[in-house]
Amino acid sequence: MVIIGMKNVSSLLSTRFNKHKILKTYQEHLSLFLNHLAQTKYGEKPKELYEPIEYMMQLGGKRLRPILCLMGYELFDSKTENALPAALAIEVFHNFTLVHDDIMDNAPLRRGKVTVYQKWNMPVAILVGDLMMIKAVDFIRESPSKQINEMLTVFLATAREVCEGQQLDMNFETQAQVCLDDYIEMITLKTAVLIGASLKIGALAADASIADANHLYEFGKNIGIAFQIQDDLLDCFGNDSNTGKQVGGDIAANKKTLLYIELLSSVHKDDRTLIETLSSEQNMEIKIQETLKLYKKYQIKAFAEHQKQQYLDKAMLHLNSLTVKPEMLEVLRETALGLMERIA
Amino acid sequence: MVIIGMKNVSSLLSTRFNKHKILKTYQEHLSLFLNHLAQTKYGEKPKELYEPIEYMMQLGGKRLRPILCLMGYELFDSKTENALPAALAIEVFHNFTLVHDDIMDNAPLRRGKVTVYQKWNMPVAILVGDLMMIKAVDFIRESPSKQINEMLTVFLATAREVCEGQQLDMNFETQAQVCLDDYIEMITLKTAVLIGASLKIGALAADASIADANHLYEFGKNIGIAFQIQDDLLDCFGNDSNTGKQVGGDIAANKKTLLYIELLSSVHKDDRTLIETLSSEQNMEIKIQETLKLYKKYQIKAFAEHQKQQYLDKAMLHLNSLTVKPEMLEVLRETALGLMERIA
Repeated sequence: MVIIGMKNVSSLLSTRFNKHKILKTYQEHLSLFLNHLAQTKYGEKPKELYEPIEYMMQLGGKRLRPILCLMGYELFDSKTENALPAALAIEVFHNFTLVHDDIMDNAPLRRGKVTVYQKWNMPVAILVGDLMMIKAVDFIRESPSKQINEMLTVFLATAREVCEGQQLDMNFETQAQVCLDDYIEMITLKTAVLIGASLKIGALAADASIADANHLYEFGKNIGIAFQIQDDLLDCFGNDSNTGKQVGGDIAANKKTLLYIELLSSVHKDDRTLIETLSSEQNMEIKIQETLKLYKKYQIKAFAEHQKQQYLDKAMLHLNSLTVKPEMLEVLRETALGLMERIA
Repeated sequence: MVIIGMKNVSSLLSTRFNKHKILKTYQEHLSLFLNHLAQTKYGEKPKELYEPIEYMMQLGGKRLRPILCLMGYELFDSKTENALPAALAIEVFHNFTLVHDDIMDNAPLRRGKVTVYQKWNMPVAILVGDLMMIKAVDFIRESPSKQINEMLTVFLATAREVCEGQQLDMNFETQAQVCLDDYIEMITLKTAVLIGASLKIGALAADASIADANHLYEFGKNIGIAFQIQDDLLDCFGNDSNTGKQVGGDIAANKKTLLYIELLSSVHKDDRTLIETLSSEQNMEIKIQETLKLYKKYQIKAFAEHQKQQYLDKAMLHLNSLTVKPEMLEVLRETALGLMERIA
């Protein structure tokens, strides 16, 4: 499968979209959303709470989730503006999780800018996140849709799952052994369900059938899992210019990625000691190179790629079950794959 | 006005209630709620998130807010069980704010037990609070009521205000001067609106008119303000056995209470230096006694009592505007006053 680089997404998509005149281009969706975002008032007083919200919401990013929400809507109705409150709700929710995650991770930077937690302080960041979560529910309820209750149900269930996923991720840090199923469950909850929910909530806002909305959810969720696996792959086998991250960062940090988990469950007895030694190796060059050799020896890359492909295949099955024009499906497929190249 | 001590509340109320056979007694409401609470499942996995929620929800307390919610319902409908999901939502929400406040305040204890933040850790406490907030919205939506949307609107607006109030309170700590209006706004948002909302959401669950629901809200809100002022009074003029707190704790901590704010705005020029000296006085005995002398000199106690009475009067005006049986109003009035003696 060819993954479209982010730099090419907008030019490629605008060509395709303009040719078909079916869905708005990525750029059109993005500017529609950014325009709405710029006009959004979260509140005024106390400014100590609302300024950090403005700051966080203007930090940028691909706006992956809100755009998927708008696309989910547009498959079933052309008045895309109607999906803006829901798209905003999803982006505000996503940013709420980032504000709180940054406290938990003691992170100094987010998208190259100082985190809310560092720019203000911890109590402010906790409250700002709380308020963003509340505002997100408010925004969902502003949607001009007959299916607000269904949208709220999906939104709240997803919000719960994202919290659960974050906790599972934290558990992994101290857990000696993590099995593949647990890992897939974690990335599903922490990231993939919100991708699925973005599309589903958009579809529901456009009064899509529950069946279509569910197929979109499964499409998004499985794409989300596939791209998390790809993230793990890129960290080991990508190159700096592609990912903006140094190769082997996960290995250096002893992160329990899909690759590492599979390695642990595949190795022969005689390589176990080597793995244990490597986990406390201080020379990062050696640590990364030796671990990569083990990945090669046990064909971990092929395993991960196979796993990823399975989730992509599942996603496509659901995509093809949608009762919308085939040309639309093609556009959605390509945009989603392009946008998801790295989950921002 | 005679305030009923907590130890007397249940016996007194059960007599009154049984005589009138109008509303359930405090004890009946409490056991109805506690029974529902004991049966509530918040979720299962990961247990690192759901165990702290169980722990927090079982810490106890007077359950003031959920009981007011049940009473708000019962004024308009006798099937009180229907208000249990909303009552639970409000108690879960209140406890979410406590979990996060305890992190912000670095508090070791809550109701005499170790705080979630201390018993587990900060990341867990942040996530636990987030999840409780989400669950609270879920519980509101479980209400068997025609007015769920109105209930949600009140709930979300109140949630936002409580966050704003907490921020205002934090602002006061570093603010050189706080005026009376700002103080009243802070206690209104931080505490009083949730008291009002508890009653209003209960009434809405019973399909009460918007007018009645709003009168109940104003009744609760004004009672809430009055009792926060009373809290400030008790801290200076109460005695240990009444409040369980040492007299003068607020003075010792340089807390900007209504009394202190009024003192600052009343003092003659020649007492200003004394106040400034006292604020950095290390001997707490002297600090408290000298500040109390100033309170006496400037009749601060009378001022605060007058303020409190004004809010109580406002509350009663709204109570008397309710279109329910006068006997019910009497019971509600006494229970609310009894329960609110100290806002737990």
